Amino acid sequence: MDKTGKETYRVAVYGYGKLGKGAVAALRDAPDLSLYGVFSRRGAECGHCHVTCGIPVYAAEAFASHAQALDAVLLCVGSATDLPRLTPALSALCNVIDSFDTHAVAEAHFTAVDAKAKESGHLSLIGAGWDPGLFSIFRVLGEAFLPTGVGTTFWGPGVSQGHSEAVRRIAGVADACVQTLPNRAARKAVLDGQICDRTALHRRICTVAPCAGADCAQIAASIRSMPHYFAGQSTEIRFVTAEALPHTYPHGGDVIRNGQTENHPQQMHLHLSLSDNPTFTGSILCACARAVCRMRARGRCGAITMTDLAPADLLPLSPAEIRARLF
Amino acid sequence: MDKTGKETYRVAVYGYGKLGKGAVAALRDAPDLSLYGVFSRRGAECGHCHVTCGIPVYAAEAFASHAQALDAVLLCVGSATDLPRLTPALSALCNVIDSFDTHAVAEAHFTAVDAKAKESGHLSLIGAGWDPGLFSIFRVLGEAFLPTGVGTTFWGPGVSQGHSEAVRRIAGVADACVQTLPNRAARKAVLDGQICDRTALHRRICTVAPCAGADCAQIAASIRSMPHYFAGQSTEIRFVTAEALPHTYPHGGDVIRNGQTENHPQQMHLHLSLSDNPTFTGSILCACARAVCRMRARGRCGAITMTDLAPADLLPLSPAEIRARLF
Repeated sequence: MDKTGKETYRVAVYGYGKLGKGAVAALRDAPDLSLYGVFSRRGAECGHCHVTCGIPVYAAEAFASHAQALDAVLLCVGSATDLPRLTPALSALCNVIDSFDTHAVAEAHFTAVDAKAKESGHLSLIGAGWDPGLFSIFRVLGEAFLPTGVGTTFWGPGVSQGHSEAVRRIAGVADACVQTLPNRAARKAVLDGQICDRTALHRRICTVAPCAGADCAQIAASIRSMPHYFAGQSTEIRFVTAEALPHTYPHGGDVIRNGQTENHPQQMHLHLSLSDNPTFTGSILCACARAVCRMRARGRCGAITMTDLAPADLLPLSPAEIRARLF
Repeated sequence: MDKTGKETYRVAVYGYGKLGKGAVAALRDAPDLSLYGVFSRRGAECGHCHVTCGIPVYAAEAFASHAQALDAVLLCVGSATDLPRLTPALSALCNVIDSFDTHAVAEAHFTAVDAKAKESGHLSLIGAGWDPGLFSIFRVLGEAFLPTGVGTTFWGPGVSQGHSEAVRRIAGVADACVQTLPNRAARKAVLDGQICDRTALHRRICTVAPCAGADCAQIAASIRSMPHYFAGQSTEIRFVTAEALPHTYPHGGDVIRNGQTENHPQQMHLHLSLSDNPTFTGSILCACARAVCRMRARGRCGAITMTDLAPADLLPLSPAEIRARLF
């Protein structure tokens, strides 16, 4: 309970990279959520947060011994290899919110998490963020309200965190940044309600800082053949020194639904413009933690995505407060 | 059950003006909803629909004798005087979806509907449409994901149905059309992330066809003093012949959330562009009927708004189908 007698939930952050830091910032500002602490795979190395920010830091391996004290954990590690293992494992111990974003294998992930969460009586939300997440909600609303129509998603211009992380894991890569650029002519055509060539809606620019002595041709081949991330896509690869890599994280995109009702053309358009992707995504994870805790308190178990939750559950307000201000 | 063995719901439309016709069109296209019929206050006068379209038409007074056979009713009558009486009354008999849009008195309406629906074991959704409705959802998401920030809603350019209907009810008015225009400079400023003068975000143009011999000065005074609709707003009033009134119903608007996460500026922007408002709103009511029937089947009773439902419930797809296509 907080000072006003409202329920508060204890939430931890697991993983303390850019996303984890964004999630911590959002949790500290949430009136109804208390930050339990950070679980880091670097363990004591990460101890400086404790000193500088007053946040308790625990070794990731100690998570199980803390799980009972938590209402939820925000899992802020990579989709490529970490989440497929960690979200099901942690769902056996606690309610989990992850930002899994590998569309192509989402169903296998969902099934694994759903089984562990149902078995143990927890509720886990996979794919929190803006895409999947906010954009998924808008795709669903677009198809629900304009069932006769076509939906198109554009990403960027921006830096894709998941893609950058996937490139960083290639042997010989010291650091990397992947930019995603929408095809401007295609975007304009869709906004004008026209049909466009859907085979080339985007291109990617991979800027790679290789390790000393690394085989750049081999790195490039590994990037171009990476399934779900780059294979079959328009990808440009540039090699630079580590100092030349960009260190800002803007992103954004569009979900556009062009449809007709009784032959009347109609358009729904969501545009997102972010100067910093990790702190926005961290803020979404934080709001989702609130919704998950509320739904679990009402008896819901298993795995869900953001389209399965009521938007009202995302806000630290009562339904009556929401009706009064946002109806 | 439909041919594939999926659950189908029987839904009626009450009121057969422009919105009712839009709702009928949407229901006829829905794979999992069957159109039970239309309830019209004109009763037999409306019988031509039965002949021309094959839709059963019933007198509004006969509703109670049909309610047992219905899963839900879409209430397509005006917010000003009809819905405050009809939504609670029909909620005692059936699950109801209405398009109540008088923000200022929404809570009294919600409370009245909630009491009747809970008493009788029904679920009623008030305020279905795009504002309130789709825009409310986006305002909630904006505040949830960017709690530090400012939300702004612009309406138009377009024809406001509720406002037009309110003017039509003034004594001496034969017909009327109210256009809502956003302040372009203010809209641009908000999109640019700037502060703008929030006292003059819109203006309204009322085009009125008076009855023969009506007192135009009196009509104008009635318009300007109408609470919740025109009082205190920038309103221009024009008198024309009935033939000169516009007979298309475009509308739209914007919900813009400018916020910051850790001092990084971020923007979420929903833009809606409709060439025909009533058929789009009818389509939203139809999708809401599906969600209400599903939530009622899971045990939910009382009154809700669109921010209380999970977007996934709006689509005639299973959660697994949604994840496969729209995640």
